Amino acid sequence: MPVISLLTDFGLSDPYVGIMKAVITSLCPQARVIDISHDVAPQDVYQAAFMLAAAHGFFPHNSVHAVVVDPGVGSSRRSVAVRTSKAVFVAPDNGVLSLVLDDADNADVFLVNNSDLYLHPVSRTFHGRDVFAPVAARLVCGMKPEMLGPEIALQSLVRLELGPAPHMDASGRLTGTVVYADRFGNLVSNIGRSHLEKHFRDLDAVCVQAGNQVISGLSRCYADAAIGRLLAITGSFDRLEISVNQDSAARVLQMAVGDPVYVFVRPDR
Amino acid sequence: MPVISLLTDFGLSDPYVGIMKAVITSLCPQARVIDISHDVAPQDVYQAAFMLAAAHGFFPHNSVHAVVVDPGVGSSRRSVAVRTSKAVFVAPDNGVLSLVLDDADNADVFLVNNSDLYLHPVSRTFHGRDVFAPVAARLVCGMKPEMLGPEIALQSLVRLELGPAPHMDASGRLTGTVVYADRFGNLVSNIGRSHLEKHFRDLDAVCVQAGNQVISGLSRCYADAAIGRLLAITGSFDRLEISVNQDSAARVLQMAVGDPVYVFVRPDR
Amino acid sequence: MPVISLLTDFGLSDPYVGIMKAVITSLCPQARVIDISHDVAPQDVYQAAFMLAAAHGFFPHNSVHAVVVDPGVGSSRRSVAVRTSKAVFVAPDNGVLSLVLDDADNADVFLVNNSDLYLHPVSRTFHGRDVFAPVAARLVCGMKPEMLGPEIALQSLVRLELGPAPHMDASGRLTGTVVYADRFGNLVSNIGRSHLEKHFRDLDAVCVQAGNQVISGLSRCYADAAIGRLLAITGSFDRLEISVNQDSAARVLQMAVGDPVYVFVRPDR
Repeated sequence: MPVISLLTDFGLSDPYVGIMKAVITSLCPQARVIDISHDVAPQDVYQAAFMLAAAHGFFPHNSVHAVVVDPGVGSSRRSVAVRTSKAVFVAPDNGVLSLVLDDADNADVFLVNNSDLYLHPVSRTFHGRDVFAPVAARLVCGMKPEMLGPEIALQSLVRLELGPAPHMDASGRLTGTVVYADRFGNLVSNIGRSHLEKHFRDLDAVCVQAGNQVISGLSRCYADAAIGRLLAITGSFDRLEISVNQDSAARVLQMAVGDPVYVFVRPDR
Repeated sequence: MPVISLLTDFGLSDPYVGIMKAVITSLCPQARVIDISHDVAPQDVYQAAFMLAAAHGFFPHNSVHAVVVDPGVGSSRRSVAVRTSKAVFVAPDNGVLSLVLDDADNADVFLVNNSDLYLHPVSRTFHGRDVFAPVAARLVCGMKPEMLGPEIALQSLVRLELGPAPHMDASGRLTGTVVYADRFGNLVSNIGRSHLEKHFRDLDAVCVQAGNQVISGLSRCYADAAIGRLLAITGSFDRLEISVNQDSAARVLQMAVGDPVYVFVRPDR
Repeated sequence: MPVISLLTDFGLSDPYVGIMKAVITSLCPQARVIDISHDVAPQDVYQAAFMLAAAHGFFPHNSVHAVVVDPGVGSSRRSVAVRTSKAVFVAPDNGVLSLVLDDADNADVFLVNNSDLYLHPVSRTFHGRDVFAPVAARLVCGMKPEMLGPEIALQSLVRLELGPAPHMDASGRLTGTVVYADRFGNLVSNIGRSHLEKHFRDLDAVCVQAGNQVISGLSRCYADAAIGRLLAITGSFDRLEISVNQDSAARVLQMAVGDPVYVFVRPDR
């Protein structure tokens, strides 16, 4: 069963996503399309990069992931395809594949410039329909990425500046950053479980500071905290998250992507 | 064609639903997934129970329905599977299956605790991905519910307290409750057509009171009322609904789930 | 691979769309369903007509398009099916097929009144479930439209009054109208590329006026304008669009569907 994932900022109100699926089904009728999300904030390449990194590992081997968050559509920005040992990714070369590339052990990169594979006439504003959908459909139906265009250097790809990685200061305080906020208001940080385990011997003895609130210890589940109370937890992405049981931490703390989160040993230990 | 329905409060903005579908497709490639809704109000088990009851009867025989509205995820709340003569339901044991169970003539209930069937490592916060998606995929691909865990008593399941059923008072007034409001602002009551037919001989001669408005008679369709006018109708769920032709009754009446609705014989009859 | 498209104003929060898909899958398990949109503004037949016209051409041959934007549901309004050389359309006879019919070279029209094909009992409020889903499923599984009901005259169909076509005045100014605004705030006009090419020899030498702003020349892509700046472009629908690079023209100009757009030769030429 060939699977294509779609990740765009097109929303579901307009017919854009349906049109992409129509093009895919026309060219590769047996393809199964799975939506990762179409509600990426318009042109938010960082958010799309995070979602893609969080989702792609759960797809079947040899899936094709088409990412269309593309403020530079129609300009001289390149379109690229990246083949890893697990999947093929097609996207504009704007950094949206940065996190996937950080995780990949090897990656072959191809320019997408073989216009014989496109839908014609190619518009100036909707390469999701005219370039990425037909290319993804042909790939998932068996076409080799080598057909898309010349192989190019991995190092030539645009990479996002992702801000500082989590870092430990001299006082023993680990500083991280909120990198994603979901619909429940959970604040997902860039502090992975591995960071925590490396820097703190006893995770029951840490405090987490978010905004002006200090949370003592990590919870095992949301319901460990009383309804409406803050908690810290290693969440769905295996990262430190700040949550409120049955409410929104983003709202309660008035925090958003980019804000800092701190972890340190509880003073009484 | 094996069919899985999904009903969650995950929304479609985050990648959670796409990840569940990726897991399902990885484990049972031939499964067809149909979304009932992912916009259940966060943690609103009552609303999910209503949607499930409204939808499940239209699915093919032997569908698997996975419901993930789960404020207790990761706590000691149980996960369960219920097999009826028509379908299998998997859900947290928090009452979300209450209305389905009210309708089922027989039901075998199983604890879901065979962790060999899960996705590992099992997170503390996303059993939709790690428990319910893989379990539903295996069920729809032919696994017997007996494999999930021990059979347990139907009576042991958590049931929602659903408030009073529609009741007739001494003065001949039938009192019901709004149990669902849809995107059009239609107010769906718990008064079924059968209640109306049992208590009122002539449905053309009833009045319906909602808020401080009294509506005379039942309409045959929305367009029976002038644009912008209130009407009462037995709607899509075969229940008494309060609507406004081409507008929102919820907005016009400032009414919501839990508010009362009354039916009585028109005074001039 | 038989394909059904769905275009409704049902939204995705309520279970209505999922129920339609359940009915379709029950009656034609091999059908593939593709959503054009379910976020048509409630009862906005014009908007649905535009979306359908924009999308249907990208679907595989012999697709079935089911359109359920239906303020007259349950009233005496007719349901119809239209067979063109490329597809079959089923919809209420309220004008929603107007733009498709404008483009079709030939079209056979059938009344839909063979209630043997419906889901029973037929509700008064949800023909999407009870009429259009089962009819579309049977059509895509091979049933001839002749089975739906008697053939009727194309001229008998309700047509939308679409307002004036783009027109050139004596001073050489082409006047068009905004007919669609998408989630990015792009303002799509009814001025097609063919109108522009017919009336203006040099498209680099035109000005476009929208609200009180005059835009000089057509852009090749969004990124041709500085971030936050207005631009005019022939967009995804091959029509003149007013956009703002990485922002919303609808918001910046406070313009909406129905507002005028003007094109004229730049005064210095």
